[in-house]
Amino acid sequence: MLKVGVMGVRGYTGEELLRLLLGHPDVEVCCVQSRVERPQKLSELLPAFAKKTDLVCKNHSPEEMAKGCDVVFLALPHTVSMGVAPRILAEGKKVIDLSADFRLKDTSVYERYYKTKHLHPGLLKNSVYGLPELYREKIKKSALVANPGCYPTSILLAAIPFLKRKKTSGAFFVADAKSGVTGAGRSSTGAFQFADVNESFKAYRVGEHQHVPEMEEILADALGEKMQVVFTPHLVPINRGILSTLYFPLSEKMTTGELVRVYSEFYRNESFVRVLPEGVFPEVKNVLYTNFCDVAVKVDEERNVAVVLSALDNLMKGASGQAVQNMNLLAGFTETKGLL
Amino acid sequence: MLKVGVMGVRGYTGEELLRLLLGHPDVEVCCVQSRVERPQKLSELLPAFAKKTDLVCKNHSPEEMAKGCDVVFLALPHTVSMGVAPRILAEGKKVIDLSADFRLKDTSVYERYYKTKHLHPGLLKNSVYGLPELYREKIKKSALVANPGCYPTSILLAAIPFLKRKKTSGAFFVADAKSGVTGAGRSSTGAFQFADVNESFKAYRVGEHQHVPEMEEILADALGEKMQVVFTPHLVPINRGILSTLYFPLSEKMTTGELVRVYSEFYRNESFVRVLPEGVFPEVKNVLYTNFCDVAVKVDEERNVAVVLSALDNLMKGASGQAVQNMNLLAGFTETKGLL
Amino acid sequence: MLKVGVMGVRGYTGEELLRLLLGHPDVEVCCVQSRVERPQKLSELLPAFAKKTDLVCKNHSPEEMAKGCDVVFLALPHTVSMGVAPRILAEGKKVIDLSADFRLKDTSVYERYYKTKHLHPGLLKNSVYGLPELYREKIKKSALVANPGCYPTSILLAAIPFLKRKKTSGAFFVADAKSGVTGAGRSSTGAFQFADVNESFKAYRVGEHQHVPEMEEILADALGEKMQVVFTPHLVPINRGILSTLYFPLSEKMTTGELVRVYSEFYRNESFVRVLPEGVFPEVKNVLYTNFCDVAVKVDEERNVAVVLSALDNLMKGASGQAVQNMNLLAGFTETKGLL
Amino acid sequence: MLKVGVMGVRGYTGEELLRLLLGHPDVEVCCVQSRVERPQKLSELLPAFAKKTDLVCKNHSPEEMAKGCDVVFLALPHTVSMGVAPRILAEGKKVIDLSADFRLKDTSVYERYYKTKHLHPGLLKNSVYGLPELYREKIKKSALVANPGCYPTSILLAAIPFLKRKKTSGAFFVADAKSGVTGAGRSSTGAFQFADVNESFKAYRVGEHQHVPEMEEILADALGEKMQVVFTPHLVPINRGILSTLYFPLSEKMTTGELVRVYSEFYRNESFVRVLPEGVFPEVKNVLYTNFCDVAVKVDEERNVAVVLSALDNLMKGASGQAVQNMNLLAGFTETKGLL
Repeated sequence: MLKVGVMGVRGYTGEELLRLLLGHPDVEVCCVQSRVERPQKLSELLPAFAKKTDLVCKNHSPEEMAKGCDVVFLALPHTVSMGVAPRILAEGKKVIDLSADFRLKDTSVYERYYKTKHLHPGLLKNSVYGLPELYREKIKKSALVANPGCYPTSILLAAIPFLKRKKTSGAFFVADAKSGVTGAGRSSTGAFQFADVNESFKAYRVGEHQHVPEMEEILADALGEKMQVVFTPHLVPINRGILSTLYFPLSEKMTTGELVRVYSEFYRNESFVRVLPEGVFPEVKNVLYTNFCDVAVKVDEERNVAVVLSALDNLMKGASGQAVQNMNLLAGFTETKGLL
Repeated sequence: MLKVGVMGVRGYTGEELLRLLLGHPDVEVCCVQSRVERPQKLSELLPAFAKKTDLVCKNHSPEEMAKGCDVVFLALPHTVSMGVAPRILAEGKKVIDLSADFRLKDTSVYERYYKTKHLHPGLLKNSVYGLPELYREKIKKSALVANPGCYPTSILLAAIPFLKRKKTSGAFFVADAKSGVTGAGRSSTGAFQFADVNESFKAYRVGEHQHVPEMEEILADALGEKMQVVFTPHLVPINRGILSTLYFPLSEKMTTGELVRVYSEFYRNESFVRVLPEGVFPEVKNVLYTNFCDVAVKVDEERNVAVVLSALDNLMKGASGQAVQNMNLLAGFTETKGLL
Repeated sequence: MLKVGVMGVRGYTGEELLRLLLGHPDVEVCCVQSRVERPQKLSELLPAFAKKTDLVCKNHSPEEMAKGCDVVFLALPHTVSMGVAPRILAEGKKVIDLSADFRLKDTSVYERYYKTKHLHPGLLKNSVYGLPELYREKIKKSALVANPGCYPTSILLAAIPFLKRKKTSGAFFVADAKSGVTGAGRSSTGAFQFADVNESFKAYRVGEHQHVPEMEEILADALGEKMQVVFTPHLVPINRGILSTLYFPLSEKMTTGELVRVYSEFYRNESFVRVLPEGVFPEVKNVLYTNFCDVAVKVDEERNVAVVLSALDNLMKGASGQAVQNMNLLAGFTETKGLL
Repeated sequence: MLKVGVMGVRGYTGEELLRLLLGHPDVEVCCVQSRVERPQKLSELLPAFAKKTDLVCKNHSPEEMAKGCDVVFLALPHTVSMGVAPRILAEGKKVIDLSADFRLKDTSVYERYYKTKHLHPGLLKNSVYGLPELYREKIKKSALVANPGCYPTSILLAAIPFLKRKKTSGAFFVADAKSGVTGAGRSSTGAFQFADVNESFKAYRVGEHQHVPEMEEILADALGEKMQVVFTPHLVPINRGILSTLYFPLSEKMTTGELVRVYSEFYRNESFVRVLPEGVFPEVKNVLYTNFCDVAVKVDEERNVAVVLSALDNLMKGASGQAVQNMNLLAGFTETKGLL
């Protein structure tokens, strides 16, 4: 049994991680951390876990977590993780970090978007971006996995097969994305009040979202050349789910059928990416509570543009499910274990 | 008092029209039609109207409607209106048609998208597209107003000020639109079941929606040249509201502030288009139950793309509210009467 | 034109009041107050009001409000209103208070439920409970109207016709009520986060809600004897609306039809209470954005219990709509003016 | 491995059953049936199952199902199951029926509520009501389990501990219940249209719901005497979940703490009923996608009434989860297997 722990267990991603890890047949959850004043039964803090676990939640130090665990998940806020991860790595244990702290190799970009100096730039050369479909072999050997953002997972999985074939005529592509409310994390600020979100719909951080540099950095690495993303995130009044719609001007004529084959071929051996048949489009409801990312393509032949759509559950393939997939890789388990 | 009637009063747009017309100070609603088997009190069919009106709903013929009314609103399904409108016009009365039947001047396009032959192509040269911000003077003099589709209203109002300045470098622009469920009309087919829509999100009719030719025809007329629209409609689990996000590659550098001024200038005298200040973006909740269309712009300077967003209530500015605005123009009333 | 002002304009009820008052043909809104740091255009604070009003929001003192207005609405938090109202009354102006501060005649009950001493008990003998269906004549002559709570409006209108006939065999009745989220007011505490409310449902303050003594006091006054209410409020994931389900053990046999007649007779002359025909039950959607309260009854003859249901919009008949109805009474306007 | 099959796999409960059975470690799903015109991959019918199973859906006869399976689940409409079950039993295989067809022992009541003659009254003496908390030992030995309705599960689990102590003074109790939309099953009639349900709330079948006799029959059996239920079901705009609120007049004084202890003791050894601590109340979100039923009690001491609340997921403990729990009992598996 692999011994694991979760720091930040009371956030949306921490709670979802715990749900998955408790159901994983080869894992034992040894310790869960949150900023509680005194040790407390987890089921008092999160009543959904009553009769599912007797775990006690404590405000463990990173060293205490490392002592009891083989792998520690950090479901902590951005800018907090980077102070915690090195203390666990120093004890010889592995870290899967769900924050953005180890995703960007360029610290000047990190500092511009996250408004603080990076404390451990030296670790960045060892961290691996935890998107198994791109970096599977590196993940298996890594001690520090930077679990991707939810939007980047959704958009990169949709864009990569197309862009690897160098078929677009543009220097950028449009990624119009729509997310449920948990994508933004649990807030104590009064944002995301029910009556302000329900029966509404809006874009936010237009042209300024921190996931843009994350996507552009990975695209440059994966493609070997620069590709820009014009990205607009929107807030959908649902709890979970992301749907992204990408637009690529075509450099040559092609049919929808041809493009479906490109994608199907690319993801033939992937367990968690499902390329939909021609004429079928992704729906959030089909991926809810699963680790799948559904992808579909459609060529607008009259206007010579390829439209690519993808859907995933932001708490699963967009965060905690993908983190467990990465843990399976780290630990040498079957990649789908505990996720089907 | 202007005497008006509504045919198809039990659909979403018919019901909304009636709500507005009953509250209009210079209008008397004389007859309401629906395919009822026998005359029935409207409040028995639509309990929300109890103690608001004593109108009786009958399956009136077009001629009966014409006899009792100065203006007849057709809230009928596409392909049905075109048989009804001429019979009312023949009696010398005016028609505001909320269906698509008189919007497209090119009947071959109509027939391709609506799968039926147009019965009265001769009327198309007299019908006017009821978007007051573009065709106000023509509407005032017309006897047959083709009330625009909800998506086209939302997208044309967002696109026109930009395109009139000829600032885009492309032959097409992307319009990624998101609509509430009433946009599709009340269905008896079992589509739009609650549990299939709620907590989900999806695109539909990707690259095939019948509003594409409607927009492209009006753009060609307004701009004097062809402009293509790559359009993807999405279904949001809300009752009412459309938000559209448009992307224009820029042919020259400009700032967000400069573009805000272009839009503010363009809509300076409009009562129902609100250009938002820089940094503020439209939200569906701000336009619900109003006839406003909120528009905002943002230039992504690094990628040289203008993003334009618009929001409206699909049953108001996207259908019935706009129909009343058109009626005010036809009748010589103040344009905002009964709509604020 | 009646000159009116609103204090606390940025809460849900304040915003709704303003929407109604701006549309009222015989009213001029002269001043709106909120705790802003500096005077600000209302449309900057509440973008939904752009192009609807040029009002400037200031942190006016009660005396400033009184100087400019004939009637001042207090949409302020409980325990704040009681310090403000006397300062406006002292200037000879009228007050319609939407808080609970002047509803309970018994200050010991007030102090038990609202956890603070009442500052002006002397005013309580002059305040009138603003439920027009019960206290219409008193309201017309009053200078201080205590606008009822949303739950009490819904439950009292459903209970009174039955109880006046003294047909129940019990010393209490059950009122199981369900409310949308705006019923609790806009919060800055992080309660009512979207993802905690959406797709969930719960009871709250079971057996402890502050509306219980409000209902019991009015029932005692209206019936001339004590009647207890076993009340459970529930939170529905909708923005607006209350549906209450009441259960009365019958002291004698009666049919649903007989009970429908009792209610229809009782509310025959009321503009805003609609008694539904036998077999039809209230739905929140039929009262949204209206000042109606829909009431239906059903006798479970096998178990000898009468079930009474009522629905209203908590921001309209449950708060701001009723406040305007009360203003119409105070000012001598037609009671329905600006509300249909 | 236990071989199982599902008939009616495309309904909400069928789909949920399949999801659970595919994840069950000791079960092999051998055949799935639906009224398809030709055999079709399940993932074409239900895209959510792509890459999860290669099952082919056929319109199997009951005999074909029996041949391939040890246990057959019937997720068929009421009145259909009763013709199917005997044909499977005749082959010596076991049946878990999710319809109402074998729940009521009194066929005259069945015929009154389901409007058709019962075809196999003889089977009723062998069928067992599949509520493990009441009938565990009988279920283990049965070949035909009548899986309970969702409302009755929710209400019986909340009522039984109280009523077994004979502490109520009444001949009936009030059960005010609220259900998500999937509780009514997938409909092809156009009922439950999104825009009619969303942002609304209503009661339905007031005093006439078919679950009343189901509850009263089981109560009589469990208590040894008649107890009536005044039951009002309501429709909540959520996909899944039931919350029931029960009211019992007390025959003697007791505190909330005392009543919590009665319930805790009663359910001490149950894996799927969680009695909440004093002051904590059930929320639908805590039981979603789980087989738990959460129960809480509160005594209104001033009015001498006990309020009991329960929450469950209508597709899990209210249908398919409970069906799997029953299968575990039939098969001699640990009762919680595949359900945690």
